[in-house]
Amino acid sequence: MSTPRPDGRTPSQLRPVTLTTGFVPTAAGSALVAVGETRVICTASVEEGVPGWRRGTGKGWLTAEYGMLPASTGSRKARDISRGKLDGRSSEIQRLIGRALRAVVDLDALGERTVWIDCDVLTADGGTRCASICGAYVALELAVAGLIAQGKLERSPVREAVAAISVGIVDGEPRLDLAYAEDSRADADANVVMTASGGIVEVQASAEGAVFPRTQMDALLDLATAGIAQMIETQREALGAS
Amino acid sequence: MSTPRPDGRTPSQLRPVTLTTGFVPTAAGSALVAVGETRVICTASVEEGVPGWRRGTGKGWLTAEYGMLPASTGSRKARDISRGKLDGRSSEIQRLIGRALRAVVDLDALGERTVWIDCDVLTADGGTRCASICGAYVALELAVAGLIAQGKLERSPVREAVAAISVGIVDGEPRLDLAYAEDSRADADANVVMTASGGIVEVQASAEGAVFPRTQMDALLDLATAGIAQMIETQREALGAS
Amino acid sequence: MSTPRPDGRTPSQLRPVTLTTGFVPTAAGSALVAVGETRVICTASVEEGVPGWRRGTGKGWLTAEYGMLPASTGSRKARDISRGKLDGRSSEIQRLIGRALRAVVDLDALGERTVWIDCDVLTADGGTRCASICGAYVALELAVAGLIAQGKLERSPVREAVAAISVGIVDGEPRLDLAYAEDSRADADANVVMTASGGIVEVQASAEGAVFPRTQMDALLDLATAGIAQMIETQREALGAS
Amino acid sequence: MSTPRPDGRTPSQLRPVTLTTGFVPTAAGSALVAVGETRVICTASVEEGVPGWRRGTGKGWLTAEYGMLPASTGSRKARDISRGKLDGRSSEIQRLIGRALRAVVDLDALGERTVWIDCDVLTADGGTRCASICGAYVALELAVAGLIAQGKLERSPVREAVAAISVGIVDGEPRLDLAYAEDSRADADANVVMTASGGIVEVQASAEGAVFPRTQMDALLDLATAGIAQMIETQREALGAS
Amino acid sequence: MSTPRPDGRTPSQLRPVTLTTGFVPTAAGSALVAVGETRVICTASVEEGVPGWRRGTGKGWLTAEYGMLPASTGSRKARDISRGKLDGRSSEIQRLIGRALRAVVDLDALGERTVWIDCDVLTADGGTRCASICGAYVALELAVAGLIAQGKLERSPVREAVAAISVGIVDGEPRLDLAYAEDSRADADANVVMTASGGIVEVQASAEGAVFPRTQMDALLDLATAGIAQMIETQREALGAS
Amino acid sequence: MSTPRPDGRTPSQLRPVTLTTGFVPTAAGSALVAVGETRVICTASVEEGVPGWRRGTGKGWLTAEYGMLPASTGSRKARDISRGKLDGRSSEIQRLIGRALRAVVDLDALGERTVWIDCDVLTADGGTRCASICGAYVALELAVAGLIAQGKLERSPVREAVAAISVGIVDGEPRLDLAYAEDSRADADANVVMTASGGIVEVQASAEGAVFPRTQMDALLDLATAGIAQMIETQREALGAS
Repeated sequence: MSTPRPDGRTPSQLRPVTLTTGFVPTAAGSALVAVGETRVICTASVEEGVPGWRRGTGKGWLTAEYGMLPASTGSRKARDISRGKLDGRSSEIQRLIGRALRAVVDLDALGERTVWIDCDVLTADGGTRCASICGAYVALELAVAGLIAQGKLERSPVREAVAAISVGIVDGEPRLDLAYAEDSRADADANVVMTASGGIVEVQASAEGAVFPRTQMDALLDLATAGIAQMIETQREALGAS
Repeated sequence: MSTPRPDGRTPSQLRPVTLTTGFVPTAAGSALVAVGETRVICTASVEEGVPGWRRGTGKGWLTAEYGMLPASTGSRKARDISRGKLDGRSSEIQRLIGRALRAVVDLDALGERTVWIDCDVLTADGGTRCASICGAYVALELAVAGLIAQGKLERSPVREAVAAISVGIVDGEPRLDLAYAEDSRADADANVVMTASGGIVEVQASAEGAVFPRTQMDALLDLATAGIAQMIETQREALGAS
Repeated sequence: MSTPRPDGRTPSQLRPVTLTTGFVPTAAGSALVAVGETRVICTASVEEGVPGWRRGTGKGWLTAEYGMLPASTGSRKARDISRGKLDGRSSEIQRLIGRALRAVVDLDALGERTVWIDCDVLTADGGTRCASICGAYVALELAVAGLIAQGKLERSPVREAVAAISVGIVDGEPRLDLAYAEDSRADADANVVMTASGGIVEVQASAEGAVFPRTQMDALLDLATAGIAQMIETQREALGAS
Repeated sequence: MSTPRPDGRTPSQLRPVTLTTGFVPTAAGSALVAVGETRVICTASVEEGVPGWRRGTGKGWLTAEYGMLPASTGSRKARDISRGKLDGRSSEIQRLIGRALRAVVDLDALGERTVWIDCDVLTADGGTRCASICGAYVALELAVAGLIAQGKLERSPVREAVAAISVGIVDGEPRLDLAYAEDSRADADANVVMTASGGIVEVQASAEGAVFPRTQMDALLDLATAGIAQMIETQREALGAS
Repeated sequence: MSTPRPDGRTPSQLRPVTLTTGFVPTAAGSALVAVGETRVICTASVEEGVPGWRRGTGKGWLTAEYGMLPASTGSRKARDISRGKLDGRSSEIQRLIGRALRAVVDLDALGERTVWIDCDVLTADGGTRCASICGAYVALELAVAGLIAQGKLERSPVREAVAAISVGIVDGEPRLDLAYAEDSRADADANVVMTASGGIVEVQASAEGAVFPRTQMDALLDLATAGIAQMIETQREALGAS
Repeated sequence: MSTPRPDGRTPSQLRPVTLTTGFVPTAAGSALVAVGETRVICTASVEEGVPGWRRGTGKGWLTAEYGMLPASTGSRKARDISRGKLDGRSSEIQRLIGRALRAVVDLDALGERTVWIDCDVLTADGGTRCASICGAYVALELAVAGLIAQGKLERSPVREAVAAISVGIVDGEPRLDLAYAEDSRADADANVVMTASGGIVEVQASAEGAVFPRTQMDALLDLATAGIAQMIETQREALGAS
């Protein structure tokens, strides 16, 4: 039997989403993304040149880094540099963000330059990796617009919008966009990355303790598809207004 | 238009799989798993006690580490320790292996002891993370059998078998168990972890450059389900014979 | 002959300062401090217990960490964790912030708990260490107010307000609160930390290339004293309004 | 008074030795060496080019790395990367292996290419460094044969065979090829590296707790000389059969 | 009420200072500096070429490193390499030494070469950073004299002498050149770096627990000015005799 | 045909040796050892307690660390901490020093305390590891004498003196105590550690490029035996005079 959601949402309802563009004026492109209480600072920086292994190919590169401010979670999280190494979870997330963004960028059209995406979590209440992807896409578009305005690019190498959302099974019920309180007691959760045209970029579904049947997998993908469409609409509005 | 597979397999055919139990006699449980040219040394070691954060809970723990021997790929891969850090890919894989195995172990029934799973790739030809999970399950069962034989456990905390397989879209066609040559030119690939009873533990699907539609996602999951059933049968035979 | 300042200020004029309290709701205390284009996220986190070397003394501890978001400067700054070590400048700054705050805290009255100050630079335009100290003091007061509200402390262990400002000699003229453009061509600069009662906590004066006479040292200290008084007034207003 | 050896060998008797060539097909040359219960995977990889300090000299380079699989000893040994540094013993051993192999290679004749020797211990029962040298020589010969077959070398830069054996004083008696049980209670032990022509490459003799007289040093060298001759015969057979 | 100093000095009296030139014959320039019981080995090494970011500018570079021998303090201090990182205090000090020396060197006149200053503390009894600067200046002059003797430089790029001294407030009284016993109970201390012509290079003043008034700041600077003049005279004598 | 030695010594002649006791007054025991141009600062520090793995055994521990001052060799050697890891050679040497000293210490009689030996090379001209052992033994004796004087030990746990010397084959001739110029062109060299009673502690012989026959090994051991006897006499004199 399913139970009401802690914040009263319906199973298929997103938390309130806001995208504040230009949040970090020193960056080529930036956005502060808020999904409920989760807030992430996303920036895109552009560097002429590419890493050594790619030099001379005429192709660009895009890479991402992800971090959490120490106070972003309830109890203070030690900095990576204090522990001496990037923690495994952050490493996984930044690789995911990089793949998500590269999926919509024509790296040939970017030319031999590198886009650095940085996502730094200001407050964490579940779904930080998905929020990061949503904000990073906006930061990327703004950085690309800057390159075009400076005459460095003729047209955008970004093929279409990309966004991500989490879904999960709580009390046996598939639900969209889990906040931390729900996520921590979910039987399974999935992070789904899709494009504006509905193409799948990435699906990462994981059972927690118990396994789950294929029918629920299908239900989760349905929910995510609808949620991502809304998220992409919000991105479009933020970029239109910027 | 689809093309023949490089090794002549049908789209839904696994590579030859062998599981050699007891490959590392110094380990509590061990197996050498070979899936085509991919070979991984899998061991399970048992240590009394659990990490500090879990002490006093009465529950056990299982964790996994994954590495590649430098010569396992065509060109030599530098050791992590020479580069000074665990590479991001290995970190992701070992976290996946740990989650996959924990999904089928009743950690309460294990008691306050730690099972260390080690997967070291001897030769790599695609699908090393899936092969690792398949071999690690066998090593785990053997280690648990040892604990029972020594009177440390009354019955097995392992609930059911778990296995993993990769699937991917090559030339527009969903295919089972990609070797390196196919994997490197796939439009998308997925690693799927499931149990003997058909429960999903983990799905990690990723587009490479291009995105892919939901219908192909569904086809990949179908292929994986069939492949995993065969893999679990092979595990059963290896354990029966050991 | 002195020249006009790039932003038209008089030699003894601060940049506009704003202090936004509660910027990071997950922290015990927090403030976003803006001094001209320099913006720093300051948080205070409270942890019961103290480091091992202080255990059993009945005294508390306060320590600070400082970082820069990669996009906070014009060209992207690599994360410490990517370079494998805390850079020397950050290490110096976080030690300074810690000393500045400890100078106004009665650690006996704090009891055996640790306050972690985190200062993360969002945008850097000169004076980030001084802005960090100003914001950190506000975050600290808010965290202490929380401890009192929760009944963990009876009265505040903070003795008085503390603030910091940079001063420097540009074109032979002593000037208050240098922005980056002035700082980078200054003949000398100093960071001064003082309390509300006018006590000196720290003076760090440094020539850049050329040395400077004692008379200018005295003039710099005079300027800083006046600037800090204004800064402390702004802190008082922010705390009054929070 | 001397006692019987735990495995019934005479003082001057080697454990059974086997050398399996081609154990790692992805490597240029490889061998699995087993000396009693000690088994080591040895590979030789060839890379065009040399380290920077050697570039432009026309000379080649050979370097070695040594590691132990975590489960190779009875209780699990943490990976170097988990502990954050190469342990001192491994560092010493890999330097020894490198010197041993370089002693029989004409680096001028190798040309500006690098041979990487990797020795990874599968199971450890004493004598792993000596077994590593014996197996590494075989891997090296196979890699060189490959270079000749590919036309990259006209003739072999390997001057002669090299092998190594441990000797020690147990219960006052000099003994050849100590297994772990004997090694751990030896009064002294030595690792000796010699070539097919009887030339000494390296002698590392060490007392453990007590010192030992020169007469025993001489006896140990005599024993080692005989043992190495047998080991070199086994290498010759393995290479002949490969 | 002020108290007598532990070693009977007057408030404005330096400890005995000796400078032994040529202490490390393998270095281009070297000195052993002793200030009371504090002794520091200072060397200057010259390397043709500059770091990458400075290449092609025609300018030289000078950088400093500072370390403490483990036995230099009463209780053994672990080496940085054993703890895995340079400690924050050492990092601060070596940056200070570098700035102090660069303040008196015309880097254009040095040409594209790098001077490495190394200061290794043999015994520590307070004031090690100031002693390091005093000794480093002497080592630098000797290294430069060598470059001139070798015909690599026509005239010295060193503009004038530089020295440093600590001052502090103990029992309310400003005192010159604190030894450890006084330093550890000082209410405030300052390190002052000045040149032979009386120019200020650096002032680092810090309260310890309590704050201090501006009048004391002025008194500390007066004391330091007199102390540095004596120190520079000692440097002159040492260089004259060498 | 053998050639004269660069410094005119006979093949069996040591360089001048001096041992200055009490060189580092802050250490429990210390000596500056000079062997020709090679000079090493050796200290022994005593810490109550032992490492965790030895706690509760009633036995003491002795461990050694070895470093080179950056300017100790002709061209500046980067600090380990700057390169981020202890270099392999230093690691090997400090393990050797530790074994050499432990061979003459009754760790039971030492009680649960740790002796730290530190050897820091001031100038390097060959034979630094042997000089380190010779000086470290003297530092150890002085530290033990202090423990006895303080009433912490009743009698010395040091069983006898230990010393070390290098020998090598240059131009076909076995020679004692190689300076750098000879060492760098030796066909083979050996480091030999022996006690006052003539017991062997350690022999490390290594060919460089060419191998060497057993007869030369025997000659090297003869030479070393004579050299160590002289070295031990020098230690006795230094300790007698201290």
